[in-house]
Amino acid sequence: MARQERAIRTRQAILVAAAEVFDEVGYEAATISDVLKRSGVTKGALYFHFTSKEELAQAVLDAQVASLPAVPAQELKLQESLDEALLLAHLLQRDTGDPIVQGSVRLTVDQGSPKDHLNRRVPMRGWTEHTQAVFEEARRRGEILPHADVTALAKLFVGGFTGVQVLSRIMTDRQDLVERVADLYRYLMPSVAVPGVLVRLDFSPGRGAGVYEAAVRLRELEAAGAE
Amino acid sequence: MARQERAIRTRQAILVAAAEVFDEVGYEAATISDVLKRSGVTKGALYFHFTSKEELAQAVLDAQVASLPAVPAQELKLQESLDEALLLAHLLQRDTGDPIVQGSVRLTVDQGSPKDHLNRRVPMRGWTEHTQAVFEEARRRGEILPHADVTALAKLFVGGFTGVQVLSRIMTDRQDLVERVADLYRYLMPSVAVPGVLVRLDFSPGRGAGVYEAAVRLRELEAAGAE
Repeated sequence: MARQERAIRTRQAILVAAAEVFDEVGYEAATISDVLKRSGVTKGALYFHFTSKEELAQAVLDAQVASLPAVPAQELKLQESLDEALLLAHLLQRDTGDPIVQGSVRLTVDQGSPKDHLNRRVPMRGWTEHTQAVFEEARRRGEILPHADVTALAKLFVGGFTGVQVLSRIMTDRQDLVERVADLYRYLMPSVAVPGVLVRLDFSPGRGAGVYEAAVRLRELEAAGAE
Repeated sequence: MARQERAIRTRQAILVAAAEVFDEVGYEAATISDVLKRSGVTKGALYFHFTSKEELAQAVLDAQVASLPAVPAQELKLQESLDEALLLAHLLQRDTGDPIVQGSVRLTVDQGSPKDHLNRRVPMRGWTEHTQAVFEEARRRGEILPHADVTALAKLFVGGFTGVQVLSRIMTDRQDLVERVADLYRYLMPSVAVPGVLVRLDFSPGRGAGVYEAAVRLRELEAAGAE
């Protein structure tokens, strides 16, 4: 393994361990020594990549949006948006979850302290800009109602997802998350999609698992192609 | 002042101080001694009402839903639902805010630790049941579309509000919160309200301040009537 590749893997192992620790105890209570124990890397290796707990947490926050693998292309752009939300719900669930997504979402939603200097806007801006770009592409394809405001809608979908996730975590330990996310789309889409598109969207909460498997295969194919 | 009334006021002063401390630093970092300093009551008085930080935090959580004063009755029940959301947004803003609402919402949304034994379901269940009851009354009055599922909708509105609040706090320090909440209703109501009701709803974000003043007057009148 080339030195550079080894460094990338070590950095990723540290990030995953840090995200797990942040998800379990929150930013305030987490310590670098917890992350060291969890990751199994040496202190020297950790400090080579990250000089402080704050830097570690910011890196976990910064990695949130990119941790969502690309979903397979669909005939309807709005179906891709829905598939992304179901995939994100899948990655937030306890058994099928992605540690970076879970830890990063906790770091984002926890109010924290102005003293922690974490920039929680990075993931929120990332999701909002991405959602707006998807809706703008859907508009170019004629899927969106003429008077729908895609800037406001991007904020609404990102905010709505954030909150149904919090509610589902508190009430059902995220057991009903895919159902809540499907409802978010089911009840909002009539204000977004033109009727001919609306009737063709598949809101089944069960899509998440299939989208996940297809997205992982897609990522593996791309990684193989890049080598 | 009767002894009982004094005890109620002291308890309320402690609750407000505790909510402010929890809002500023979160549950983990808060201490009873911060609350003592902030409230100005004696240690004996505080421990007469609350025996631990956990008990204080749970009391702040339990007081969340009741901290929202009743909004003035409207011809349309769905307008009352919208007015409640705008009022809650008003009470969450920095300058016009209610400390118990703010501190309690932070305690709810912060993920915390299983070890803190806080029951965050109390406020979430309270909001969901209240919202569902309002929608059921709206249904009896013929305001709701026949196939709308009010149980799912109650969860969606509570979750949606929770999340647009988190997004608005992170991105604009809640400056745009009333706008985000108005959008939540604007884009969801077409899936909820019958057309004749939909066109009569007033979604103006500016309603919040007026609703707040009317709700406070209403509460004062009721308090005067109860004496």
